Amino acid sequence: MHTDLVAALDIGGTKIAGALVDGSGRILLRAQRPTPAQEDGDTVMRAVEAVLAELSVSPLWAGTSAVGIGSAGPVDASAGTVSPVNVPGWRDFPLVSRVRRAAGGLPVALVGDGVAMTAAEHWQGAARGYDNALCMVVSTGVGGGLVLNGKLHPGPTGNAGHIGHISVDLDGDLCPCGARGCVERIASGPNIARRALENGWQPGPDGDTSAAAVAAAARAGHPVAVASFERAAQALAAGIAATATLVEIEIAVIGGGVAGAGDVLFVPLRRALRDYATLSFVQRLTVAPALTGTDAGLVGAAAAASLGRHGEAAAVVSSRS
Amino acid sequence: MHTDLVAALDIGGTKIAGALVDGSGRILLRAQRPTPAQEDGDTVMRAVEAVLAELSVSPLWAGTSAVGIGSAGPVDASAGTVSPVNVPGWRDFPLVSRVRRAAGGLPVALVGDGVAMTAAEHWQGAARGYDNALCMVVSTGVGGGLVLNGKLHPGPTGNAGHIGHISVDLDGDLCPCGARGCVERIASGPNIARRALENGWQPGPDGDTSAAAVAAAARAGHPVAVASFERAAQALAAGIAATATLVEIEIAVIGGGVAGAGDVLFVPLRRALRDYATLSFVQRLTVAPALTGTDAGLVGAAAAASLGRHGEAAAVVSSRS
Repeated sequence: MHTDLVAALDIGGTKIAGALVDGSGRILLRAQRPTPAQEDGDTVMRAVEAVLAELSVSPLWAGTSAVGIGSAGPVDASAGTVSPVNVPGWRDFPLVSRVRRAAGGLPVALVGDGVAMTAAEHWQGAARGYDNALCMVVSTGVGGGLVLNGKLHPGPTGNAGHIGHISVDLDGDLCPCGARGCVERIASGPNIARRALENGWQPGPDGDTSAAAVAAAARAGHPVAVASFERAAQALAAGIAATATLVEIEIAVIGGGVAGAGDVLFVPLRRALRDYATLSFVQRLTVAPALTGTDAGLVGAAAAASLGRHGEAAAVVSSRS
Repeated sequence: MHTDLVAALDIGGTKIAGALVDGSGRILLRAQRPTPAQEDGDTVMRAVEAVLAELSVSPLWAGTSAVGIGSAGPVDASAGTVSPVNVPGWRDFPLVSRVRRAAGGLPVALVGDGVAMTAAEHWQGAARGYDNALCMVVSTGVGGGLVLNGKLHPGPTGNAGHIGHISVDLDGDLCPCGARGCVERIASGPNIARRALENGWQPGPDGDTSAAAVAAAARAGHPVAVASFERAAQALAAGIAATATLVEIEIAVIGGGVAGAGDVLFVPLRRALRDYATLSFVQRLTVAPALTGTDAGLVGAAAAASLGRHGEAAAVVSSRS
């Protein structure tokens, strides 16, 4: 009989994934629904409830002592609410209280998806054993989270580590967030592809204009494709160096689809990091690809709930009251 | 009879200040020597020893239980060494062990000067009562420190909060640190003055080309002087917003000579912050002038030592061994 299980929810704009996760991070049971992202808030919530219902009919549910949620942001862990950019029906939506009700009153922990991925990488991935780490997802957007002094640092509202929206180019292009020159505005997959297309790169016969196609062209030596990845790497390096200079991290872990480009990204990134991480205490910073893959959100949500139960990240945990 | 005193050292490129500080942050005794900054390392150390000797002949010394050092950086609290940019005779200089010997074996805590100022502002100044804060000095350089989760966050080497050397303009001017577009390269006093002069501002009959003179001209409405402060404010805003986005701070406290410009700096800074601090969880961020003044380094060094003794910032404390 399993005890000490956590129910994990990974809530994104496309799907709502759920799982029962054991104390060593193994996924024992899964459930999933598409996110009805354009519907009203209650309809989206019903999809979450369906996932929880599917998990709770399992005999394993009796050993489940908490729920951990990693959600697309912004979240507000202190209020227990979420306002995911891509789910317009949820604005200050009281997700924590609704999940607690659906889960029979179990305690619920909420963090942003970047923080969840970080919890997973610190527990089981490339950041394992590091007391100070930045973990990032470079994909359609750029997100992240921090480990400081050996512990997850979600921040008071569960949003810390939002490296995608720090400005590294204060006069740069306007970002949808309202600021200019954000890391995401330069380094996300769609922006890598946009810049390549604007500068004369053309897709192959399949018409694929994704960042992955630009990466393939860069590997084949196409100079515009190479330059677009180099620019993304420069912005990521400036953002990572800023983080290291501000909070002293020892490793930056990078996951997400764009990280799948491999050397096309990592070689210029490590080179650019030498240009921006100049102070003595940040020069030993290493960069590594993420290891936890597509289950990072679920494993990390479970980790955040476990941390909360052990009092290490009280800010992310809603009370039972 | 006073007990629970701390001997504080504030070590800069111009002077070495020392004090005995009580548990409520009052300075009971002072000593000071000029920094022989261009001499060899042992000569500089003798000035530190002279300050400690002057303090230790006081009857108050019997109640002193620790030494706190705030030093110009970079420092390496984990190794107990310092390498201040403006004191070339000290490179990886074993300041902690030398001070411990000079102080009769008392435990010694070492932090960077930005971290010390932050400890002072959190204890007695504008950051008091805030659990998450950035405190900055904008002066000849730009330095800073962080309070996270209610505690000083010196980082493993005592250098965290180095906001002056994060890049907010990745293609910008080369900074002496080796990176480009650092906050300090745009917002320090000398850079405010340089930019005003380059754009046609001329000093008055007294020939004063300091940032304070530019501030006076800006108050009188000189457009080039106003613009130079606005550019500095923009860079500071981008850096403060980046910090808030990365670690969730509630307040940014700004001290140092340039902060003395008052509204000439703070009005455009608060305006620019609205441009860069865009995500929901950073929009409530406030900016306030520092309160602790010229004793911040001493009071903060004492605070860092006290925190160390109480186990809250073990990384900054050298053992007795």
